[in-house]
Amino acid sequence: MGENSVFKSEADFIAWIRRKPPRQVAGLTLGIGDDAALVTVPPGQELILTTDMSIEGVHFTAALHPPQSVGHRALARSLSDIAAMGGTPRYVLLSLAISPSTTRAWLKGFFDGLFALARRFGVAVIGGDTAVAKGPIVADAIVAGVVPLGRALRRSGARPGDQIFVTGRLGMAALGLRLLDSRARIRTPTQRAALRAHLFPQPQCALGRFLSEHRLANAMMDLSDGLSIDLKRLCDASGIGANLFANRIPAAPHLDAEDALALALHGGEDYQLLFTVSAAKSAEIPRHFGRIPIHGIGEIRAATGLDMVTPNGKTISIETRGYDHFARAARR
Amino acid sequence: MGENSVFKSEADFIAWIRRKPPRQVAGLTLGIGDDAALVTVPPGQELILTTDMSIEGVHFTAALHPPQSVGHRALARSLSDIAAMGGTPRYVLLSLAISPSTTRAWLKGFFDGLFALARRFGVAVIGGDTAVAKGPIVADAIVAGVVPLGRALRRSGARPGDQIFVTGRLGMAALGLRLLDSRARIRTPTQRAALRAHLFPQPQCALGRFLSEHRLANAMMDLSDGLSIDLKRLCDASGIGANLFANRIPAAPHLDAEDALALALHGGEDYQLLFTVSAAKSAEIPRHFGRIPIHGIGEIRAATGLDMVTPNGKTISIETRGYDHFARAARR
Repeated sequence: MGENSVFKSEADFIAWIRRKPPRQVAGLTLGIGDDAALVTVPPGQELILTTDMSIEGVHFTAALHPPQSVGHRALARSLSDIAAMGGTPRYVLLSLAISPSTTRAWLKGFFDGLFALARRFGVAVIGGDTAVAKGPIVADAIVAGVVPLGRALRRSGARPGDQIFVTGRLGMAALGLRLLDSRARIRTPTQRAALRAHLFPQPQCALGRFLSEHRLANAMMDLSDGLSIDLKRLCDASGIGANLFANRIPAAPHLDAEDALALALHGGEDYQLLFTVSAAKSAEIPRHFGRIPIHGIGEIRAATGLDMVTPNGKTISIETRGYDHFARAARR
Repeated sequence: MGENSVFKSEADFIAWIRRKPPRQVAGLTLGIGDDAALVTVPPGQELILTTDMSIEGVHFTAALHPPQSVGHRALARSLSDIAAMGGTPRYVLLSLAISPSTTRAWLKGFFDGLFALARRFGVAVIGGDTAVAKGPIVADAIVAGVVPLGRALRRSGARPGDQIFVTGRLGMAALGLRLLDSRARIRTPTQRAALRAHLFPQPQCALGRFLSEHRLANAMMDLSDGLSIDLKRLCDASGIGANLFANRIPAAPHLDAEDALALALHGGEDYQLLFTVSAAKSAEIPRHFGRIPIHGIGEIRAATGLDMVTPNGKTISIETRGYDHFARAARR
């Protein structure tokens, strides 16, 4: 670890972290500094637990991603899982393995990004683990949230006849990554929005909670690996299939239509919500939630499989090719 | 990832994992397979949350540690944190980053070790994350447990006059690592015990719970980095100091006395418990808990600092040099 780059000891590092995050949120009995953290779950609530790793060279690169973005995205991935259950995030534990060459400036940037997002969602950093190891930086963000008993929205609740909805514009994060990768100069508002969608995705916790509280959705998940693979996961969990309409899928504007559709179907890391609503209730879904557009893109059917009606009226089978770590490694 | 070494996809891998662990424990509403897990915490109980990373090259090596031991130790570290709070472990989430060259045999060994320990403690594997990345294997074991409200034992509760106790024999895991490192032939029962202490440490959950339930201890933590540094952490958290008696510290037998004492003071990864008990209650501490010996090794004092009375009656200041990731990196 370089000279002016490190904390002298783990105690020094922990002392620094303890000064930064929101220190108190509902239910927190004991935060950072003991063998474990202690929290209470209010009566009538269930606890939601999720964890997501962010690994240098897989989920981010030192060359392309500012550390603020790495910290933001590490936490956003897990917050989005809480959103996908219809819950409220409360606590985060962070396991962080840095390399001997990680600089103090990088660490400060990383925590600035993570803490800013934590503050905005009222989430307290209550524990974690740290290590220095040769190899890529690995951040594992563990988030605990709460949801009223029995109200969590699962992937398995979709029923034939349900309408399928998504939030936001899909493929924007993938477009942002493409722009970042190409080191293209960012000129247009769409390009700026795409870059922001990739570097600083916004978990849809308020909307997830709204759908749970009003019992509007039958099934929900977040879009982390791409619509095609994630919708297949929802369909598999529910034992049903789906028909989509290509021209209803909200894709990136100002792009070749085919390119935009491919990004919307297979681009990952949008962290928008995918949910299904019974036909009877689908009229109650607003077209916007705050500034977030909501689009009906298709319908759940009894027969398994994913089909899509193309703009010219043909029905084609949707290929699932979002991100899969193991499949990607196997293809190499 | 090698030919006959991998799961074809993440879904394949998750399907394999889902068949293995205990599937149901108290309070589990939803386990592996959705965006997040759901658990309920019984009324009158608090939730304990902890996480510990195990990294190839830092916490274990591919050359020396069989994968069963790596899986066992990854979970044992977090279970020991729950023991240190006086709680009962219930759930584990596992984040696992493997390298493209990790074999299926290694993975099976790893999970055999982890699941065997999970079963023995009645802990369900309810979630996690997986990735394939070039670099060391990283396992992050997140454990959630429960403890009756207000009964968790912290590091900060030690008071002047408290007697200091430890469980087991200290330095055995460090001795085991030394034997492993030297590739010495294991001949004696002590050597076998030391190797077992290193490869398959036993979290002291039952004893931790006993101390909490009977309100016997004022402060507690587990010995993960070595008695000298861990006791200093407990003293710092409580704002007090300690006097130890060298000849009361239970060290490895059949070794040079000075060597054994150094291992007991500074050897890490014993995962025994360190706790303090008021003078009035210290007679209630049994000499054994099941087969685990318990030893009184000193006394808490008001003045900060750590001193030790040596076998020849001299009082010396204890140097703290257990394991610190950042300090180790800074020294390089």
